[in-house]
Formats: sequence, C-alpha cells, structure tokens
Amino acid sequence: MESFLNDNFMLSSAVARELYHRHAAPQPIIDYHCHLDPAMVASDHRFASITELWLGGDHYKWRAMRANGVPERLITGDADDWDKFEAWAATVPYCLRNPLYHWTHLELKTAFGITQRLNPETARSIYDACNERLQQDPSFTARGLMQRYGVELVCTTDDPVDDLRHHKAYAAEVNEGRAKGERLPSMLPAWRPDKAMAVESPEAFRAYVERLGQAADMSISTFNDFVDAIQCRHDYFHANGCRLSDHGIEEFYAEPFSDTEIAVIFNKVYGGLSLTTQEVRKFKSAMLYRFAVQDHETGWVQQYHYGPLRNTNSRMMSAVGPDTGFDSIGQCTTARAMARFFDQLDYEGCLAKTIIYNLNPADNEMVATMVGNFQDGSVAGKMQWGAAWWFLDQQSGIQRHLDTLSQLGLLSRFVGMLTDSRSFLSYPRHDYFRRILCNLLGSDIERGLIPFSGYEEQRVRDMVEDICYRNAKAYFGF
Amino acid sequence: MESFLNDNFMLSSAVARELYHRHAAPQPIIDYHCHLDPAMVASDHRFASITELWLGGDHYKWRAMRANGVPERLITGDADDWDKFEAWAATVPYCLRNPLYHWTHLELKTAFGITQRLNPETARSIYDACNERLQQDPSFTARGLMQRYGVELVCTTDDPVDDLRHHKAYAAEVNEGRAKGERLPSMLPAWRPDKAMAVESPEAFRAYVERLGQAADMSISTFNDFVDAIQCRHDYFHANGCRLSDHGIEEFYAEPFSDTEIAVIFNKVYGGLSLTTQEVRKFKSAMLYRFAVQDHETGWVQQYHYGPLRNTNSRMMSAVGPDTGFDSIGQCTTARAMARFFDQLDYEGCLAKTIIYNLNPADNEMVATMVGNFQDGSVAGKMQWGAAWWFLDQQSGIQRHLDTLSQLGLLSRFVGMLTDSRSFLSYPRHDYFRRILCNLLGSDIERGLIPFSGYEEQRVRDMVEDICYRNAKAYFGF
Amino acid sequence: MESFLNDNFMLSSAVARELYHRHAAPQPIIDYHCHLDPAMVASDHRFASITELWLGGDHYKWRAMRANGVPERLITGDADDWDKFEAWAATVPYCLRNPLYHWTHLELKTAFGITQRLNPETARSIYDACNERLQQDPSFTARGLMQRYGVELVCTTDDPVDDLRHHKAYAAEVNEGRAKGERLPSMLPAWRPDKAMAVESPEAFRAYVERLGQAADMSISTFNDFVDAIQCRHDYFHANGCRLSDHGIEEFYAEPFSDTEIAVIFNKVYGGLSLTTQEVRKFKSAMLYRFAVQDHETGWVQQYHYGPLRNTNSRMMSAVGPDTGFDSIGQCTTARAMARFFDQLDYEGCLAKTIIYNLNPADNEMVATMVGNFQDGSVAGKMQWGAAWWFLDQQSGIQRHLDTLSQLGLLSRFVGMLTDSRSFLSYPRHDYFRRILCNLLGSDIERGLIPFSGYEEQRVRDMVEDICYRNAKAYFGF
Repeated sequence: MESFLNDNFMLSSAVARELYHRHAAPQPIIDYHCHLDPAMVASDHRFASITELWLGGDHYKWRAMRANGVPERLITGDADDWDKFEAWAATVPYCLRNPLYHWTHLELKTAFGITQRLNPETARSIYDACNERLQQDPSFTARGLMQRYGVELVCTTDDPVDDLRHHKAYAAEVNEGRAKGERLPSMLPAWRPDKAMAVESPEAFRAYVERLGQAADMSISTFNDFVDAIQCRHDYFHANGCRLSDHGIEEFYAEPFSDTEIAVIFNKVYGGLSLTTQEVRKFKSAMLYRFAVQDHETGWVQQYHYGPLRNTNSRMMSAVGPDTGFDSIGQCTTARAMARFFDQLDYEGCLAKTIIYNLNPADNEMVATMVGNFQDGSVAGKMQWGAAWWFLDQQSGIQRHLDTLSQLGLLSRFVGMLTDSRSFLSYPRHDYFRRILCNLLGSDIERGLIPFSGYEEQRVRDMVEDICYRNAKAYFGF
Repeated sequence: MESFLNDNFMLSSAVARELYHRHAAPQPIIDYHCHLDPAMVASDHRFASITELWLGGDHYKWRAMRANGVPERLITGDADDWDKFEAWAATVPYCLRNPLYHWTHLELKTAFGITQRLNPETARSIYDACNERLQQDPSFTARGLMQRYGVELVCTTDDPVDDLRHHKAYAAEVNEGRAKGERLPSMLPAWRPDKAMAVESPEAFRAYVERLGQAADMSISTFNDFVDAIQCRHDYFHANGCRLSDHGIEEFYAEPFSDTEIAVIFNKVYGGLSLTTQEVRKFKSAMLYRFAVQDHETGWVQQYHYGPLRNTNSRMMSAVGPDTGFDSIGQCTTARAMARFFDQLDYEGCLAKTIIYNLNPADNEMVATMVGNFQDGSVAGKMQWGAAWWFLDQQSGIQRHLDTLSQLGLLSRFVGMLTDSRSFLSYPRHDYFRRILCNLLGSDIERGLIPFSGYEEQRVRDMVEDICYRNAKAYFGF
Repeated sequence: MESFLNDNFMLSSAVARELYHRHAAPQPIIDYHCHLDPAMVASDHRFASITELWLGGDHYKWRAMRANGVPERLITGDADDWDKFEAWAATVPYCLRNPLYHWTHLELKTAFGITQRLNPETARSIYDACNERLQQDPSFTARGLMQRYGVELVCTTDDPVDDLRHHKAYAAEVNEGRAKGERLPSMLPAWRPDKAMAVESPEAFRAYVERLGQAADMSISTFNDFVDAIQCRHDYFHANGCRLSDHGIEEFYAEPFSDTEIAVIFNKVYGGLSLTTQEVRKFKSAMLYRFAVQDHETGWVQQYHYGPLRNTNSRMMSAVGPDTGFDSIGQCTTARAMARFFDQLDYEGCLAKTIIYNLNPADNEMVATMVGNFQDGSVAGKMQWGAAWWFLDQQSGIQRHLDTLSQLGLLSRFVGMLTDSRSFLSYPRHDYFRRILCNLLGSDIERGLIPFSGYEEQRVRDMVEDICYRNAKAYFGF
C-alpha cells in the first residue's frame, strides 16, 4: 500500500516515476491562462491569513462547503477568519475522492511543508502554522509563492477597458530586476472582451461602451466607432505584451449577418432597446468574427471557453454576485456553428492559432476531432483542444482529455496545462497534471503499447518536456 | 485467478475486502425507491414458481431473451412455467458480461444457496430446487425474502388515487408485531403523480380526474378543484407515512405560465380537446411546480427520474402494454429548464430536498454539477444526484456515477443505492453496489490516493456505513 | 515491462493470451463493410510503392500530418513518393498513443515482416524494403495481401448506378478457381444509395437521376419512375450477390409524409428548384423508408452510419474534394426520430436485420438500448449496435463499445469487426479488435467476473469464435 501523497503520488510504474522526476518536475511553469489579480503581483501582496489565501475567492471550496451543510455566513458571510477556516477544515474530510482533497494537501505540503492532514483535530495548528509563515516569512508573498513553484510566466485575464497599469508597473520592475540578474516571473495581460458582446442587457452594454470610449479616448456613437475603439484597445494590449485572447461563451455563434444589420442592431441596443434572441446571436456572431480577425492580424492565439450555464441561482446572484459557485456544466448542440465559424476564418485566410475548451465532457470527441478539420500544416498543433477545464480539471477529467486527445489527435503537440485559477497556491495543479501525464505514458510503456528504446525512448522523454513546457513556449511565442 | 462469485467477488484489494465485510455487508437495507406490489407484502405472497418470481414482470430479462432470438410466446406469452424458465436458462450463458448474469447467480446464491451456474444442463435441477423452496419453505414468502436480505424499510411507488389499504393493513401488522418484539420490514408509500400531468390524451386524463375526484371524495370541475383534490390526497399519503415523491419525466419543464392560462388549459383538456405541444409543456410546468411546493410544505424529499424514451414499439405496446421492455435511453437538452425549475423554487424559498436521476450517462456531469447550484447549506447533501438508474444500474454505470459524483461533488454525503425493482429478489443489487463502492475506495487507498490512518481511516470506515445506510436514514427522516 | 508489439500485444493475462491465440487469431476474416476499389481486386493490382499503398487515400494519416505541421504539398500535393513518405515517417513518432502508431507497425510487421520502428532514421530503409516487396514479390498484390490475412469475404461499397463489372469479372474468376481447388477471397457489392436522397443540390440530384435512368435502362420523369429504377438496380445488385445495404446519414429522418407530397417534392427538385429544409427532410424520410422496405423484401441486412459532420472546410473542399480528412464528429438529438423510423417498419412487418453505427460516443448508450426496442425474437441479435466506427475505431473506442454493448445488450451475439477501409493493409484492425476482445474477457475471468470452467468455459471459447467469425457468417447469410 502506497502512503498518501508521497513523492511518487499517482505514479504507478517505475517508468512513470523516472519520466516524472527527471523530465516533468524540473520544467518551469508557463501558466498561460489564469485569473490572478495583477495588483497583487505588482504590489507583491502579503496575505493576512490562510483564510484570505484559500477561502477569499475559491468557489470550488465554497460549493463543497455548501454541499456539506455549512451555512453561508461561514462561507461568503461576515464570520471571522478562524471560523471560516474551521468550517472548511471540518468539510475537508468529507471531500475524499474530490480533487479539493488532493489540492488542499498538495498545497499544504508544497507551499508550507505541512504533511499533516487537515481535519477538525489539526485545524488549529495548521491554521496557526500557515498564518505565521504568511505573515512573517518574507518568501510568502504573491511573488514569493510564484517563485517557489518555478513560475516563468503568467497570463492574467483582462478586460479591454483595463488600463493595465499593474502590468506596466510590474513589467518595469521585472526589467529592472533582469538588469540586476534577478529573475522575476513575467506577467502578461490576456484580452477578454466578453462584455463587448454582452448585449442581453442594453443598460449594462451602454455603460460598457462608455467605459470603452473613455479607455480608447474617443467618442462612440456608431458600430464603426465601437469597432475602432476595440481595435485601439487591442493595439494597446499588444503594445503591453498581450499575445492571446480569451472568449467565454455559452456556445458558438455563426449566424449569417451583414454589416448593415449589425450597425442597426448596435444602434438599437445602444439606444436602450432590448434585442430579440436572433439579434443577440447575430451580434455575437459578428463580434466573435471581428475579434478573430484582429487576433489573426496580430499573430495572437485565440482561446474559446464554451459550455457553462452561468448564474443559475437568482437568490445567490442577488446576494453575492457572479462567480461565487452557482455555475454548472451546460448542454448545447454547437458543432455545426463551431465548424461554420472556423470555416469562414480559414476560408478568408484569417484563422489564428486557436485553443478550444469545452466544459461538458460529452463534447470531448466532437471538439477533439473538430480541431483536426482546420489544421493547415502551417505550424504543428495550430488548432488545439484545450486542457480539461474547470469542473473537468481533476483526475478523471484530465485522464479522459489526454486519452481522447491521444486517440483522436497528436498528444505530442499539446500545449499543456494551465491553472485558470484566482489563487497563488494553485500551481500544484500543474504538478497534478504532470503526474497524470507521466503515469499514462509509463503505464503504456509497461504494457508494451509504446516502445521505449532508441529513437522512440528519446521521443517519449522529449514529449514529456514538450507538453510540460516547450510546446507552450513555442506556440505562444511570448 | 479468482473463482466466480466468491465471497470477495469484485473486491480486488485487502482494504476493499475489509471495508466491505466489516462495514458495508452488515448494514440493513433501506430501499427507498422500488416497485414492489404492496398487496404481495400485505398478503405475504407465496410464489407459485421461480418463473413467476423471476420472469413474471422483469423486462430486463425479457429484453435479453428477445435479443437472444426467443419467441414472445416464451417470454410474455402463454407458454407454461417450465418452458419459459427453460428459454431463460438457455439465454443466461449468452448474457456473459451483462449485469443479468451476475444478478441471476447472486440471487440463486444468496436466496437459494445454489452455487451452480444456470445453463441448459442445470436448468431442470435448479428449477426444481427453487420451486421446492418457494412452495414449501415457510421463509420463502415475500416478507421472508425481505427479511433474509436485512431489509429495514421499503418505499413503494403509488398513484395519488391509490387507497393505500395494503400499506395500512401491513402497517397495522408491523405495529402489532413490534409490540410482540418482532421486527417486520417497514413499507411506506411514495407519491407518484405522473398521471396528473399526462394531458397528452384528453380522454385518459379525464378518466384520471374522475378517479382522483372519487379518491378525494369531491367533485372536480375547475383547475382549482383539481389542485385541491391533489392536496387532499397528498395529505392522505402523508398521514399514511409517505415522505417522498417521485416524478417520471422525459425532460424538465419550466415554461413561464400564469394561473389563468393553466385554468384555461385544464378546462380545454378536461373538456376533451387536444392540447398543443406548448400547452402540454405549460401544464406540465405548472404541475411540476405545484407538486414541488407541496413537497416542500410537508418536508418530503422529491425525486425526478428523467430521460427515457418510452413505448417506442407500437406493435408490442398494443400486444403487451407499457413497461414490458420497449423503453430506452433518450436524448434531451434539458439543463437550462432544469436550472430554471430549481431556481424558481429556491428563490421562493420552497425547494425541498431533491434527488435527480438521469438515464442518459451523457448527462452525468451536467446533473452532478447542477445539484451543486442549489446546495444551500441548510442540510448536508440537500440536493442529490441519484444512483445510477435503470439501464445504468450495472458495474460500469455505478462506477461512473460514483467516480463522477466523487470528482464533482461529495461522495461522502450520497444517500446511496435503491433497487427500483418489481422483484423480491433484487436486494443483491444493494450488495453489488456496496462491493463496487468498497472496491473503489480500497483501490484508491492502495494507490495512496486516500489516506488510511488516524482520523481519515475512521472517516473512510464511517463513510462506507453512511453511504450504505446512515445517510439515507438521516436524509429521508422516516 | 512488455516489449512493444510482441506476440502478446495487448493481452495482459494468461487467459486472454490463450483465448486469442487459440480461438481468435485462427478465424478467417469476413470484412462485411469496406471501401476497397473493386477494380483493384479484379485486376489484382500491384502497388507502385508503399506511398501509394499507405498514403494514396488514407485521410487518417493526412490529418495526423496536417496536425504535425506538414504542408499540403507533401500530403495530397504533387510531391514525389519518397518526399511524401519521408514526411509521414517524420510524423509517425509524434503519433505515439494514436491508433496510427499501432496500425503502422502492425502493418509493417504482419505484411512485410518489418519489426523496426518507423522514424526519420529508419525511413529510407523501410521505404526501400517495402517497395522491393511490393514491386517484386508475387504475393504482394491486392489479392495476395487479402490472402495473407486470411480474408474469406469482403463487401465493397457501391452506388446503385454502378455496373458491378469488376465484381462480375472477379466472381467468375473465383468460381473458376474454386473448380480447380483454389480459394480466392469472395468479393460482394454492398448497396449505398446515399446519392438517391441527396436532394440538397437540385443540379447534382438531376445528374444522378439521369445516371440512374441509364443504369436501369429506363426513362425517369416522375417519382414512381425513380422508385422503379431504384428497384431495378436493387434487383440487379441482389442478382450479383449483394446482401446488405448501407446508408450514410447525418441523423435519422422520420418526418410524416404522404406519397403525393413526395411526388411533388421530387418534381420540384428534379425541375431544378431548391427545396426547403422541411422538404429535404420529408424526402429523406421517404427514401430511407423505401430503401428499408426493399431490404426487408429481399432479406438483406441494412446498415445505418450516422453522426458525422462532413466537408467542414470549404477551402480544402474546393482544393482536394470530399473524404480527404475534413469531416469530424457531429452532434445531433436523433433518438426520437430513430425510434419512430424503426417503429414504423416493425409495425408494418417490414423491419430487416439492422446494424446502427453512431459516430459520437456520447450516443453510445442511447443506440445500445435503442436496438433492444426492436429485437423481435425472430433471430438472435437481429438488431445490432455496430462496431466502433471511424474516429472510434481505436483502443478506447473499441473497449467502450464492447463494454457498453456487454452491459446493455448481448455481447455474445455481436457480429463483430469490419475495417471500413480503403486500404488492402487494414486487416490488422481485425487483429487489434480481437486482442482487445480477448483481453476484456481474460481480465474478467481473472477477476472472477466470468466463470471459466465446464459449460461456461466452452461458452466463452465459442463466444470468441462467434464474435470473430461465426456470428457474421450466420447473420449475413452470404
């Protein structure tokens, strides 16, 4: 019987262990998609407590606590730090087999060196030990944590209206440091223009257009102005190192539209009138298309995260707002629209490098084969089926993704893992992914499904390093 | 090589074996959802033959026989008991890898002590041996079989118009027995008002409304009367110990509707006119909502079984009626309606404890995450993703359910297995489930994925007992 | 550690090995669905090079090359044979974990006796060695390859307008050979009338109707003429040994229609006018129904391959045409239409033996249970859920199919594998399938899930032979 969370955690064969320890573990981390707060990096934030760090914004943990019967006061409410931590600690032992159980203990071990298990009996001592480090150890700041995990680069997620001042300030500091031989992790913005197509609410859209006009320093009164302002911000992001976009969508939109139609729809919604469902779909189709063309022009990578059902709980939406744990996996029949969307871009010669992430694993095989339709031989792995995302970012979700990608595409060309996280402690998810990857390969080698000598042995070794680091580095061209 | 169906059947590690034998196997059975005939319990029915017991109403076996080329005469036709049994025995060896193969031999072993395999060579001797016990052994009655398997409580499935006289008669007997120190299994009704929203056929609906009026002892001429009559029966069921409802639906219905609209629709269908598809959906939406509110008011648990495609074979529907093996797994895109339905109830503060069962495993992850949207912290595991149902009630279906539930929710809080069966011999399905559960946990422990010492070891041991028995006991509050 | 691709490749238990070597491997191959060119069989084609044989039409390899960044010139372009082969050889090591990696090396080993791995270092020597055999060894022709793999019979895929002259010529040769005691593989046509319902393009449809009229030697001006012409060709195919049909559809069509409506729709499209979506669906519904009735009348087996999204890439469609690697897995909600379609046929007593193949594995359980609705006991396994198809024809796709079929139907009655291939080198896919099958059974036996002594041991042994060979032989009645 293996001991819990030992050095060979999840590595069931000798080959898997060797691949992991020699080739995967030493790789730096490129976390090309996360939701870290740039201000915290720029200010090298110090956390008041493990409660702030762990429970301040982690809706995974909040969902688990609610499912465990914990009242909201102890989750997002006004309870004090210790009470919230205690409620979480009491929930942890009920999370056995949930990824939170592994993440929690990987984080305690790799960040704090704590190998005790968190439960009601250990809660107080772990709480105190973590807080002492966070409050007193100079290496336990936002940047210190990133460095502890070998982070080379992160891409945050930013709205076009963002002034990127934290990115700029931090970039200046990174450059200064470099001159002195220091190596701070890089932080680049990523372009997330979801609000520029959120025309469901005329009021919110109008407010957004006004903020966009201010950011671009121009007045917007027509759709053409709107597009110009977005282009202006796209240029600004590019000038500040942005090299990839991201789109959070329920499904793909590829309705036929004319420029005139879109101009009319823009005027209607900007004038405060509600749009019909079909008008909304046309507008989203138009914007998705324009965003894609812009990304192609600048050589960016475009990402599409589709498939969630968001804000399902109106009561809690009013009480605590969005992104608090009331989203889930949706259902849509979007294959045809997805194909049409990429077909048009490919046909017009403006299909950028693309990563598609689905949330419902019932879509896995559809997406895994869809990307193959638009591989054009210009660059290896141009079209990517993105890593297991959100609810799927766990042991079986990652395994299914890697297995399906292997069977239906080229695993070797995969750009690998990302955290998609708001937390500075989520880097063990890269480790988790790397262990699962090495274990799959090791298991195949053990069973004679993959050759492991000569040329192919080297290929397997390289492949591990590629997927953990080099593929992303080459693909994004940071 | 393990011998077939030995004591450690399905238990591949030492830990799994210990968990099963020490913690799972000894638990009593709460079968909170079944289709037993209450009359058979009340009368302590004695079976004429193993053919009656096994082949009288088991559409799983009927489907297997049809797929094996057995003519209908030997399945639901007028062939005699032996001929039918012989046809089944000839089919059994062709069922290798189908759950029927395991169930058949688990039932022979645990009920009759027969460890021979059923095949054409053993058919006669097994037939005779079973029949002898059924006809002569005093413990081989309906109740005797329940007691043999440690059944503590069953919930049958009952229409609102049912007078529950068998439940009442049996309950009286149970109480008398208790006074004498005897322990008969409890039998409670469950509320299944599907027919009260089956407005597709005006004629059948009207007939049902008339029966409902008689049952409630009131005359029904408006929708308000209809609702009052249902409330009256709901009260009656509650008074007779009912604590949970069940709804068999193709998909979820959450169309907007007004009381006036529903009153008009009721008058139309009650007056004999066919409804439009949209009217049917509105009516179902209204009824699902009202049922849910009633359940919340009385503190019941509500169950939703959705996703089958029923009565697909018109020829056989005419010949042998519904529920005879011509239903299959459907496809629907119901996530959004499901979210709207529970959101409204949650918003209005009248969301009862809820169990959702899907039939198409492509929906697994959607449902597993949907329940998380409405966990409100009031009670652990308030919203449940129900056990693998019907076609999914087999080894890989149960494993997928448990794995997905683990990764996306809290396995620890699961209320566990049920038989959903018409047969007094189906209790080995609880055993089957328990073995799979213990094997999953044991396998994780062996691989170092779950800690197994100190606090956590006790938690794992408790968790097995919780899922097999205690969670259900606490959740339903019988 | 097992060596790569040894004799016990994929066989992880002693029982699996014995089942495979003794019962599976010796069976002849009935490849009841393939896309071989009949002319190549009739002329006993000799291949100019391994490039022609491997890369001439294999869109699986083309997709892998495009994903690996290979320019189109080296795939379908005018590059020479060696350059194309070299580009493929450079791609192969990047295909680790993709079925192409296994297929490639199985084909090298079983056809050419080459056990080296293909990579840039070995590319030249393997290229030369293969070409030498292909060009000089008398047994390396189209027929020679089929005989090398123990092929007993193949069914090609043929349009109703095909004159079948290659089939006739070859059949004559087979018969002559038989008189002399030689055993050539049989080759039968299969009926694939997709174009007779492709009414989306009036122009192409009209051209097809004209070719059909010529083939049937009659003039077509009404829908009745059209149906008569099809019947005439159906008779002709039957006279030439055809015993099964095949339909490539996106989804099932079962719209209500009247003969008058269809006659009008036919006139409209034949007259050059575009049809509405609903008219297209009605016409397809009518044609699918008529094809099915014809198949029932002649006792054929009907096959339905549904679920792809075809020709998604317009640019490449213009450049290199259909079936070149730009199709992928689609999404549809077709369960209800599928049920209606088979229900009508069953109700009218004209449901032929049927095989349904889905492309999206999210539909697996739906189809696996759907076939059970129409098993009528007339013949074992009348309704079949077809083998894992196209993108699913790989290790996990085959395993999922076999597992799901086992749990939801009767694996024992499965008619087994087919190649669906354009290549004379694809027979190792039968071997691949057989290994996976034996491994599943062996693993179950090892774990005590399947009994393996006495009657049941013989059943398991027979079952392997049945699924590999005898079931197909009996089912198709060639």
